[in-house]
Amino acid sequence: MNQTEPLHIQYPALGHLAPFEDALAATPWLADPAAKSQRKLCASLEQAVERSGLKNGMTISFHHAFREGDQVINQVVATLARMGFRDLTLASSSLMTCNDALIEHIRNGVIRRIYTSGMRGKLAEAISHGLMDEPVQIHSHGGRVKLIQDGELNIDVAFLGVPCSDEFGNANGTHGASCCGSLGYAMVDARYAHNVVLLTESLVPFPNMPASIVQDQVDYIVPVAQVGDPAKISVGAARVTSNPRELMIARNAADVIEHSGYFTEGFSMQTGSGAASTACTRFLGQKMARDGIHARFALGGITGSLVDLHEQGLIATLLDTQCFDSQAAGSLARNPQHVEISTNVYANPGSKAACCDQLDVVILSALEIDTDFNVNVITGSDGVMRGASGGHCDVAAAANLTIVVAPLLRSRIPTVVRRVTTCVTPGSCIDVLVTDHGIAVNPARPEIRERLENAGLPVMDIEMLWERAISLTGAPKAIEFTDKIVGVIRYRDGSVIDVVYQVKE
Amino acid sequence: MNQTEPLHIQYPALGHLAPFEDALAATPWLADPAAKSQRKLCASLEQAVERSGLKNGMTISFHHAFREGDQVINQVVATLARMGFRDLTLASSSLMTCNDALIEHIRNGVIRRIYTSGMRGKLAEAISHGLMDEPVQIHSHGGRVKLIQDGELNIDVAFLGVPCSDEFGNANGTHGASCCGSLGYAMVDARYAHNVVLLTESLVPFPNMPASIVQDQVDYIVPVAQVGDPAKISVGAARVTSNPRELMIARNAADVIEHSGYFTEGFSMQTGSGAASTACTRFLGQKMARDGIHARFALGGITGSLVDLHEQGLIATLLDTQCFDSQAAGSLARNPQHVEISTNVYANPGSKAACCDQLDVVILSALEIDTDFNVNVITGSDGVMRGASGGHCDVAAAANLTIVVAPLLRSRIPTVVRRVTTCVTPGSCIDVLVTDHGIAVNPARPEIRERLENAGLPVMDIEMLWERAISLTGAPKAIEFTDKIVGVIRYRDGSVIDVVYQVKE
Repeated sequence: MNQTEPLHIQYPALGHLAPFEDALAATPWLADPAAKSQRKLCASLEQAVERSGLKNGMTISFHHAFREGDQVINQVVATLARMGFRDLTLASSSLMTCNDALIEHIRNGVIRRIYTSGMRGKLAEAISHGLMDEPVQIHSHGGRVKLIQDGELNIDVAFLGVPCSDEFGNANGTHGASCCGSLGYAMVDARYAHNVVLLTESLVPFPNMPASIVQDQVDYIVPVAQVGDPAKISVGAARVTSNPRELMIARNAADVIEHSGYFTEGFSMQTGSGAASTACTRFLGQKMARDGIHARFALGGITGSLVDLHEQGLIATLLDTQCFDSQAAGSLARNPQHVEISTNVYANPGSKAACCDQLDVVILSALEIDTDFNVNVITGSDGVMRGASGGHCDVAAAANLTIVVAPLLRSRIPTVVRRVTTCVTPGSCIDVLVTDHGIAVNPARPEIRERLENAGLPVMDIEMLWERAISLTGAPKAIEFTDKIVGVIRYRDGSVIDVVYQVKE
Repeated sequence: MNQTEPLHIQYPALGHLAPFEDALAATPWLADPAAKSQRKLCASLEQAVERSGLKNGMTISFHHAFREGDQVINQVVATLARMGFRDLTLASSSLMTCNDALIEHIRNGVIRRIYTSGMRGKLAEAISHGLMDEPVQIHSHGGRVKLIQDGELNIDVAFLGVPCSDEFGNANGTHGASCCGSLGYAMVDARYAHNVVLLTESLVPFPNMPASIVQDQVDYIVPVAQVGDPAKISVGAARVTSNPRELMIARNAADVIEHSGYFTEGFSMQTGSGAASTACTRFLGQKMARDGIHARFALGGITGSLVDLHEQGLIATLLDTQCFDSQAAGSLARNPQHVEISTNVYANPGSKAACCDQLDVVILSALEIDTDFNVNVITGSDGVMRGASGGHCDVAAAANLTIVVAPLLRSRIPTVVRRVTTCVTPGSCIDVLVTDHGIAVNPARPEIRERLENAGLPVMDIEMLWERAISLTGAPKAIEFTDKIVGVIRYRDGSVIDVVYQVKE
């Protein structure tokens, strides 16, 4: 049956073509009835790690769709520590208060480097005080994909927790006991990591469709007791507020959108997870219903408030990179125009197209904003990291109207400052600041300022807001830092936009 | 704002990190309101070709979801010819009778090499008679993806016709005027080609969801008058038969499945597009309804017959790499458990998992089958190419029960032969042959033979079928070939399983 000899003689350029040997030469597992369907299944996480070929010094990755309910990151890192791994780079799409347990593994040398969108709690505090030998790399959600595509972030093994998977690795976040909804972050790791290990809470029969992570992306599968607590997804950033100051800011922000010139039929929006911006979604929905205005799409992290508007027919499509609550996760399973998108599709500046480029209006939060409109969403007023870059600088750069909502003061400390402690998003990307003491418009957008003034909104120069803050609190005491850099703030294109210094004890 | 100097001094290993320059440095199009959303749109195919950077000697690719109705391949190649391109490698997932126009462009040196699953009509005849200087590479559907992943088939520019796309490139085959249904072939090219040009019949507003081809895979978009005629999708291979001989074969095949040992609750099936196998689907459906047996999934090319069974609740999920008729395309748009899969997910032996590995029963066709069960689906009894490798060898290798259906004679020429003219699928992968003169079981599967005999089916040795054929027609005249190799048959793993010689005039 060897047909290659005459072929090679007649066409020497085809000399590299090998003769047929055996029907199963490339697929030996097909000769074994069990291996045919079970070859990816691992009896334990340890076995999956061994089969993945993980070595000291390699890069491991995680997603944070379960937010404060995540039970994968700590579990995997503890296992790797027990197995004796060292010098790993941890690349999680973000880290939360629930990841305090990592402190020990950083101290013991298991984790040597960290890439993350942000951090909170004791872990952030320890790192801000100099826990690590190398600075943490803080990236945006879109910027993370660019770092991966550009090769700086080269993921050796991705450990991806999912509520359900079949034995081939078809997985989604919308079925099973612990639904996180969109797997928008994990989709990127599944696409780019050299090895993909799924940790699944339930192993369901093939074919598990629809599949957010697809079988041709998955190497190994480990059934585990729990990957996350969905009740804790909405803890923290994504909450509904009854705080009158936040409600007032939300009303002002909705008024700004209404009169900005962008509140027209078929507009698009992203309102994110902050308390005021979530409330703003509801106020905006009332205006949309009143005026008969429909949004083409809402983008980004999806909340129950956006799902309500979608189900009322006020938003045609939800493009969902992360579900901020169980209502959103339920909608993703149910509504065909509630669509899961990867963070590459969402906001990567190096992607062939990022949805944020289509965005009209976005509402973002800030820990600090300075009189040049630069925004800090990572360090608190004490210089300690307690936030996340998230999609902030991605969407701010792309949207037609970028609104930051923030109270003028937090615990008697000004939010509007002369100079942000840490710059995450450059002021050139911010168009409007909405506070509980007034609204400021970036001088680069005089037409917006004029529209808001004509509508009778309380517009003032941002310096006035700063002076108001100072007059209420006095000049804030400068934070004392050492010279040691503990964090590097990467702009979405990978450049270094700022660094974070170690806080003095 | 340059924070990199202290960073580089403190951490020399981070010396490659660049300082932030400008918010839009990596995304200059964001400064231009038109470019923000329109930067991929091209006024003409010529413009798209120019922007793609296509050069002489490069590789272009196409999908064949429109089958005999395709209007993209000829259109693009004619344009490239007018633009003066030469020495191109054409890699279409398959070629059809409708591609006769390529003969001229091969003759003129525009097309130098061809990779395809198959060919028919005048093009196939001309190539069989020595039209090309280099032999055509014939691959299977799964094997094509392996050739791409292994780098042999390195697609420079994919030209993918779609019924609808938005301005970012979110496209599907289920909406718009000319629906082809699944874009399972195109999904692979969109994933692997260096440049992806969409030709779209309708340009719809962003976001066009669901998206089979996703915006982050697409470089350029050209609106065109027509990409295909969906009425011609079911021409040729995919037809419904009233031929009594084919119906008899179909009934026998359904009986074989029923008594094979694989007809159990939760089994899985692929029945393909041949006339007899399409009819077999209906007969099998009657047995399933009668016995209360449900299939987990049906795989591969999907027909209206399979859709009927799905909508009757007899098949839980349809995994669809290609719609063989408009009923299938309509179902894909409508039924959530009718799921589009790429050919990488379908059948690539190099994929991290191929659905065919989960398959219980498959029905395949044959132009010839020899007494060692080797199958020819590419060359006719005159030695001229007139078929396609398709998923034949992929699924045959993987399924638990591979059934070939074929009439014993076609136009008084035997289908069962001593030695196939061209071997596409090795006999070790074929379990049962069903003809209108009896059923033969591969001696490697004695347990199957026993079950069929116990059920009273007309089982006989394959040699008996061969003798029967010869006794009816006399010994067939040997085909006369020259020494020139005009086609190379690649097994799914990339190896050369056979070659096709030039037919003597």
